[in-house]
Amino acid sequence: MTTDTIRVDRAALEDFCARVFQAHNLSEADATIAADVLVAADARGIPSHGVARLPRYVLGLATGLMLTDVEPEIVRETPTSLLVNARGAMGAPVSAHTMNSVIDKARQTGAAFGCIRDSNHFGIAGYYAMLALPADMLGIAMTNTAALGVPTFGREPFFGTNPLAFAAPADEEGAFVLDMATTVVTRGKVEVYDRAEKPLPEGWAVDAAGLAATDPTLILQNLTVQAGGGILPLGGLGELFSGHKGYGLAVMVDILCGVLAGSSFGADIADQAGSSARVSHFFGAIRIDTFRDPRAFRRDMDHLLRSLRSSPPAEGEERVYFAGLKEFEYEEACAREGIPLTPKVYAQLKETGAACEVAPPAVL
Amino acid sequence: MTTDTIRVDRAALEDFCARVFQAHNLSEADATIAADVLVAADARGIPSHGVARLPRYVLGLATGLMLTDVEPEIVRETPTSLLVNARGAMGAPVSAHTMNSVIDKARQTGAAFGCIRDSNHFGIAGYYAMLALPADMLGIAMTNTAALGVPTFGREPFFGTNPLAFAAPADEEGAFVLDMATTVVTRGKVEVYDRAEKPLPEGWAVDAAGLAATDPTLILQNLTVQAGGGILPLGGLGELFSGHKGYGLAVMVDILCGVLAGSSFGADIADQAGSSARVSHFFGAIRIDTFRDPRAFRRDMDHLLRSLRSSPPAEGEERVYFAGLKEFEYEEACAREGIPLTPKVYAQLKETGAACEVAPPAVL
Repeated sequence: MTTDTIRVDRAALEDFCARVFQAHNLSEADATIAADVLVAADARGIPSHGVARLPRYVLGLATGLMLTDVEPEIVRETPTSLLVNARGAMGAPVSAHTMNSVIDKARQTGAAFGCIRDSNHFGIAGYYAMLALPADMLGIAMTNTAALGVPTFGREPFFGTNPLAFAAPADEEGAFVLDMATTVVTRGKVEVYDRAEKPLPEGWAVDAAGLAATDPTLILQNLTVQAGGGILPLGGLGELFSGHKGYGLAVMVDILCGVLAGSSFGADIADQAGSSARVSHFFGAIRIDTFRDPRAFRRDMDHLLRSLRSSPPAEGEERVYFAGLKEFEYEEACAREGIPLTPKVYAQLKETGAACEVAPPAVL
Repeated sequence: MTTDTIRVDRAALEDFCARVFQAHNLSEADATIAADVLVAADARGIPSHGVARLPRYVLGLATGLMLTDVEPEIVRETPTSLLVNARGAMGAPVSAHTMNSVIDKARQTGAAFGCIRDSNHFGIAGYYAMLALPADMLGIAMTNTAALGVPTFGREPFFGTNPLAFAAPADEEGAFVLDMATTVVTRGKVEVYDRAEKPLPEGWAVDAAGLAATDPTLILQNLTVQAGGGILPLGGLGELFSGHKGYGLAVMVDILCGVLAGSSFGADIADQAGSSARVSHFFGAIRIDTFRDPRAFRRDMDHLLRSLRSSPPAEGEERVYFAGLKEFEYEEACAREGIPLTPKVYAQLKETGAACEVAPPAVL
């Protein structure tokens, strides 16, 4: 972080976001959840999904891309399943409610799953998977997103970044929290290279002919005008580095979200001018004690995660991490020192707040 | 395939393998399952997991690495879960039984999961995931394996190839069947390069210092003598191509198999001279009709898979596939023309059969 990084208190930032959401017709309860999810991204070191998106959410609420006057509807329900139609509502509140229902169902039955259709961006997938941790459950969360990923051997986008998250509790080591896009990188990463005017590493993207391409401006422009080409799945180009596996994972996420929810999937999910992609989510919870004593499970998780964390680093590297460790350490630092924001993001927050008469969080 | 490829009838090959297994003290029922799983790999174009392994299985049965006189034991059971101790038995029969029990439980409850501990190699993970398809369920199967994969930024093996499989039914398009190692490649692929005396693509493996390495002989030797180094996770070296995601997936599989089953995990799973790694498996089944009409689901799956299959190929490529398509096409060809075997593998089968007085399958 540069020296001109601004720091704000986490609770104050949450409160600010919640007030802004309330000023845009979200109920107090929903606004609180939406703020919690947004700020969790900043606090976990994923600013691409954090309050930098607040102006976009506010615009979505103001223009009706995300609806505030709808009540999500339960389409189908069994003791182990739940299908919800969000009816165009904001993604985070309905997602938190649904994941909590899934956890309640798993408490009764041992394992449960939920789908949401006709939803909007839900923030970081890991947030919902982690809701299962205090209940001594394994948590799962996925979402499909607007198509930008090109199938192995293909040239046109057919899947989104389609992240999947999986969380498992430990004791002293906290938890294992995997939260990953199934594309090799997200669109945000390509935008970072574009702003820096740096060529992309070969293996991230292809042009409209499906050939390896390294010009970020071209890739982004092709995606915007739907000219073909886009981002490659995890594993990269072709099959040499197993790009077909990342492609398979991306489609698996789309099946569990879009197809299982009976909603849009594949290339049909696209952001258009004036309308946002209606996306679908998938959630799951599995009670650990249906297999073994959760305390013994968490003890073994400590052993596994500690072994990984303390395993010898490669020459020239400092440490070995496990999924979620960087984020936990970042979150601890934020609790001590406040959440870092760039001056640009802070200025945006001030502007967004001023438009609805909400004072920005104090600079620490 | 070269012109000297030998072809045999699938049923005859299954029958041969089953007789060999019976001659090594497997019950008729278990021998039939073990043969079915083994031959399914050859019939689906995955010969690395097929009858080429028969001599190894027979040796394992003969030397007691895999036990035949044990009855797998149910350790814990609920309406949505099952934990089985295989007590060192062969992997395939207990895995098929357990997956079928998981499917039965899901039939009652909507979703169910099973773990097996103290097991042995179970063959191709996709076989078990696909057992869910006729029941209109989503199928899941995973296994941990002997450690050979090196964590991102690390230098010592801490996870196996840890494959995960996911199957979802379609109608005319068959099914989507993802069956993938979470390492960038398997040990078998490195062995192929070693035999061909070709350098590995950079991004497949690291040496004992954790640095990128391309000498297959060195990599395999280091693994054998546990000198450090090994195969990289899906995504390759470091974080530039998201190797940390493949690393995360490999550990997720280990958590669902080894930790959830209360068995060995991580670096503790290792093949030693005279004893095979005791591995653990994880299975799951989710009933589609708890979310929507399975016919509508399969119709949408047809639409999704057909869209992918008929999407325009990249310049220089012929086709776009979806996960499982190559295998289905290969299986259809095998049904028409017989299963191809190399002369070497056929000679091994003859030898293995001769040792226990079982006639080899006729050459077509």
